[in-house]
Amino acid sequence: MGYNEKPKLEVCLSPALLHLYDTKGATVVIIDIFRATSTITAALHNGARCIIPVASVEGCIELGKVVENSVTAGERDGKIAEGLQYGNSPLEYPKEFINGKALVLTTTNGTRLLHMVDGASSIVIGSFLNLKAVCDYLLSCNANVLLGCASWKDRFNMEDTLFAGAVVNEIGGAFDINCDSARASRSLYRLASEKGLIEYLKDSSHYKRLSGFGLVTDMEYCLNLNTHPVVPVLLGNEIVVSA
Amino acid sequence: MGYNEKPKLEVCLSPALLHLYDTKGATVVIIDIFRATSTITAALHNGARCIIPVASVEGCIELGKVVENSVTAGERDGKIAEGLQYGNSPLEYPKEFINGKALVLTTTNGTRLLHMVDGASSIVIGSFLNLKAVCDYLLSCNANVLLGCASWKDRFNMEDTLFAGAVVNEIGGAFDINCDSARASRSLYRLASEKGLIEYLKDSSHYKRLSGFGLVTDMEYCLNLNTHPVVPVLLGNEIVVSA
Repeated sequence: MGYNEKPKLEVCLSPALLHLYDTKGATVVIIDIFRATSTITAALHNGARCIIPVASVEGCIELGKVVENSVTAGERDGKIAEGLQYGNSPLEYPKEFINGKALVLTTTNGTRLLHMVDGASSIVIGSFLNLKAVCDYLLSCNANVLLGCASWKDRFNMEDTLFAGAVVNEIGGAFDINCDSARASRSLYRLASEKGLIEYLKDSSHYKRLSGFGLVTDMEYCLNLNTHPVVPVLLGNEIVVSA
Repeated sequence: MGYNEKPKLEVCLSPALLHLYDTKGATVVIIDIFRATSTITAALHNGARCIIPVASVEGCIELGKVVENSVTAGERDGKIAEGLQYGNSPLEYPKEFINGKALVLTTTNGTRLLHMVDGASSIVIGSFLNLKAVCDYLLSCNANVLLGCASWKDRFNMEDTLFAGAVVNEIGGAFDINCDSARASRSLYRLASEKGLIEYLKDSSHYKRLSGFGLVTDMEYCLNLNTHPVVPVLLGNEIVVSA
């Protein structure tokens, strides 16, 4: 960056658009509100030693066998996947249970995006549960920022976009924004937060799908602001609390 | 479609996401507000015999030589491309000039999307200039609808999304919508039309880029509602007014 220039902030609405953005040297925020990045944030704040994200159920089972004091977790179609021990709910990982343990986690969309990002100077996990902590971290980095929505099988989704918009709304002024996705996300967040996030989301695809699995309480929990103020960062193959 | 089922309506925010949607048998609306689809709509309403969309400047020049009573048009970086006769402004094609002529047109984003769509039952050109005509046509088709934003080099753009939102706002109730892009577009359109479309767009990437080329009047023109009430459809390799 040149003298006096602000770093850039952009929003990528789907992993299928990731190739359009230059992630080299940037801070990339992975967003999968329902529910991977909310669960990761909650578990780390509740004392999990680390989260190990893996792409497949098989990989999750194998790693669970070799990582000391670990639990395996992941869902497929709203149920704990066969062979794994726990699900993908932030409410399953209270301090009494997860403190000191490694959580080996497989998720459909979030994990995939995490593994696609190339050359970033740091990869951070964002959720409403740690919104302010993530924003403070992004300000402190003084680097370009890409907010990456995990989306749903590459399709735009509302809740990830709203979180991206919340970040733009908080700290956009500190960045150079020449990105219509960032502006649209901010508009949508402002509109939704006036109406109430959960109210606004009731019409969305993911809300409908997850409420069909009985997961309304989970979604409500994921929309709490700043309940778990930690900054999870990727370090090698593990997600840990930023030092 | 089953008995009593409404057809689906979905919004594709970028050509890079087109593979996620099933266009077979659907009516696909191509949206490139600044300015290809606005120009096509205006020229056809002003009496152009047909529009022939081509991908390259070279193809445009070649075709211009063989198509009777035709003009070639296209811009690169806001200027008439070398070897072509006219630009990509809806204001360049008044009735006195374009009536009866074929317009051989090359554009960067719109043409590309047009050629990517596969198996659609019909491909329609949408712009604010023919919003109501397009909506009436979509209602009459009783088929699934995909609103396809041409975007800007595969990046989400605001003005195409606002038009998609205008369509959802008009006729969404007649369709089954399980698509967060459609919901987001509608929210953005409502917000922008409260504020005034041009006001809302002043902050957008394309507005900034095109106003740098002195094209504010063009953009204002492209945001007029229903000035050119025709339905341009693709018939073979030509775009003509729907019979």
